[in-house]
Amino acid sequence: MTEAFWQQPLPAPSDSHFQKALARQGQLTKPPGSLGRLEALACELCAQQHRDQPAVDQVQICVFAGDHGVTREGVSAFPAEVTAQMVANFAAGGAAISVLARQLGAALEVVNTGVAHPVPDDRGVTNEWIAAGTGNIATEPAMTSAQLEQALCAGDRAAGRAHDAGAQLFIGGEMGIGNTTSAAALACHLLAAPLEKLVGPGTGLDACGIIHKTAVINQALERHGADRDAFNSLASLGGFEIAALAGAMIGAARRGIPVLVDGFIVTAAAVAATQLRPDLFPWLHFSHQSREPGHRHLLDALGANPILNLDMRLGEGSGAATAVPILRSACALHTEMATFADAGVSDGQ
Amino acid sequence: MTEAFWQQPLPAPSDSHFQKALARQGQLTKPPGSLGRLEALACELCAQQHRDQPAVDQVQICVFAGDHGVTREGVSAFPAEVTAQMVANFAAGGAAISVLARQLGAALEVVNTGVAHPVPDDRGVTNEWIAAGTGNIATEPAMTSAQLEQALCAGDRAAGRAHDAGAQLFIGGEMGIGNTTSAAALACHLLAAPLEKLVGPGTGLDACGIIHKTAVINQALERHGADRDAFNSLASLGGFEIAALAGAMIGAARRGIPVLVDGFIVTAAAVAATQLRPDLFPWLHFSHQSREPGHRHLLDALGANPILNLDMRLGEGSGAATAVPILRSACALHTEMATFADAGVSDGQ
Repeated sequence: MTEAFWQQPLPAPSDSHFQKALARQGQLTKPPGSLGRLEALACELCAQQHRDQPAVDQVQICVFAGDHGVTREGVSAFPAEVTAQMVANFAAGGAAISVLARQLGAALEVVNTGVAHPVPDDRGVTNEWIAAGTGNIATEPAMTSAQLEQALCAGDRAAGRAHDAGAQLFIGGEMGIGNTTSAAALACHLLAAPLEKLVGPGTGLDACGIIHKTAVINQALERHGADRDAFNSLASLGGFEIAALAGAMIGAARRGIPVLVDGFIVTAAAVAATQLRPDLFPWLHFSHQSREPGHRHLLDALGANPILNLDMRLGEGSGAATAVPILRSACALHTEMATFADAGVSDGQ
Repeated sequence: MTEAFWQQPLPAPSDSHFQKALARQGQLTKPPGSLGRLEALACELCAQQHRDQPAVDQVQICVFAGDHGVTREGVSAFPAEVTAQMVANFAAGGAAISVLARQLGAALEVVNTGVAHPVPDDRGVTNEWIAAGTGNIATEPAMTSAQLEQALCAGDRAAGRAHDAGAQLFIGGEMGIGNTTSAAALACHLLAAPLEKLVGPGTGLDACGIIHKTAVINQALERHGADRDAFNSLASLGGFEIAALAGAMIGAARRGIPVLVDGFIVTAAAVAATQLRPDLFPWLHFSHQSREPGHRHLLDALGANPILNLDMRLGEGSGAATAVPILRSACALHTEMATFADAGVSDGQ
């Protein structure tokens, strides 16, 4: 019997391309190191893409949408119907991620992994529907093992379409009312982290709402028990879109496509994905630090240094999309700047 | 006798446009405030541009170059000839700012305000040459009052050309071996700040080099004495390119063009410019926090919150250019996102 895709080792970024890129950075007409993060990003992209001239012109953004049974516990500032409404808004071009994708010239795919309510108009939406939302994690597992496999494979298929479209960078986004609850529960469990560091307002809970959300997550964690296996934890505490994100990140990496990670939810999916496949980490760039307070904790636990900190907390992949031009600048500088020798500039003492 | 341009009050950004923009942000299909800094940037640009649909498609980048007599004290890791060599590199398209300007579709102007050595090829360089570098501020004033007026007016003329070209955003950059010494001296004096907080490695001094640079700046500050008048301090401790930057920022604001401020040197120029004209501040966006350690102190003194922190420390306007796409994203989201009413999305509790 063949292993599932997430059980197979991932390729490693190319160290020889990294070293060559590092050497080139030292020859460009600037004081050594003076482009800061842009130098490191360029070198990492060279290694991931096995290229001397890295490029992120072709960007695939895939927004996975799914509903959460735990919204029945009143853990969100918005009603669950909004997931379906926003899926229609993505496809119609009116959401933040739609605007950003257009601006970047990026391909935007919206994948319905398990929206509970009817989508008003789902033209252009990719159907990977598993069920009408997950189980209520406070009282039952989010999904069965078979459903989790379905969700992981849905993510991998999205990465396959990105690869077929020539994507040089993959961004996963998400939409799912209630998913900060699921993401906090999952990450708290997988990282053995203190819950109070991971629970936040999500789309806009007040202090009382956060206390209630914390109690609901505690109930879910007690129900789940001590099993820290990443697959089992995802099935028990995750969401369809969160599992699909984990599958998509692994799916992108196994096809040699670097991943730009968005905010709190996607980072929680990255926590699960890197526990399923620790060799995933070198494929991930972390785009921004969300204002959702738990995000800093997840980034620290992963040892990740986000590119932006703009107090965003929208999700959809919007933070990652906002960071794409930074990567593009890093690529252009690496490729197009003159060397000291080319330009006849003295290279210091 | 007419007042000089920097003595005339500046127009104020439009509060009515700001309020209208703020109201629109509350109607867009996202949780309130969830786009973080992007919301504030869009509203500020609406106010500055007196527009409901802000835009920074047309960007003018003006790099002012000048030399510094204080390099004779051995305060830089690079020889003074590099100023002239880099001017040629800007114009030939091989420098970081050349690459970034091309990528942005921005106009790049290079202005020679007082380069000491012959520029190998100055085709495309705007001639506003005042002298072959400033005086050595350790022992003499940087420039005369007449030279300072010349430099301020050179900056204002650059802003005028930006306006004539239809610029929606102005970026000033700089090149001048030795100019972190001049900028640190000027800012330290104008802010009455502790010098050790403002002196750093510049293009790459080691610890001994920084100790020597500190001693040289102390000598300059003792020579200058107690006169805290911004005009007199600029003449005594500044640089031609630093004064031109101050003039250009005021020049942009008086023509209704918002300014995106670069790193340590440009922020020091902004300190001087806002002391000449305190009503300049509402026209300034601060693009990034430089790795030059004194920059944080200058930003704090101005009450400025930079958009990026990428450990850059190159100058040339490169940090500001890197931040332009963030402003463009803010503008696109503000203009193009659907409202809750348009998209039929429920707007929360």
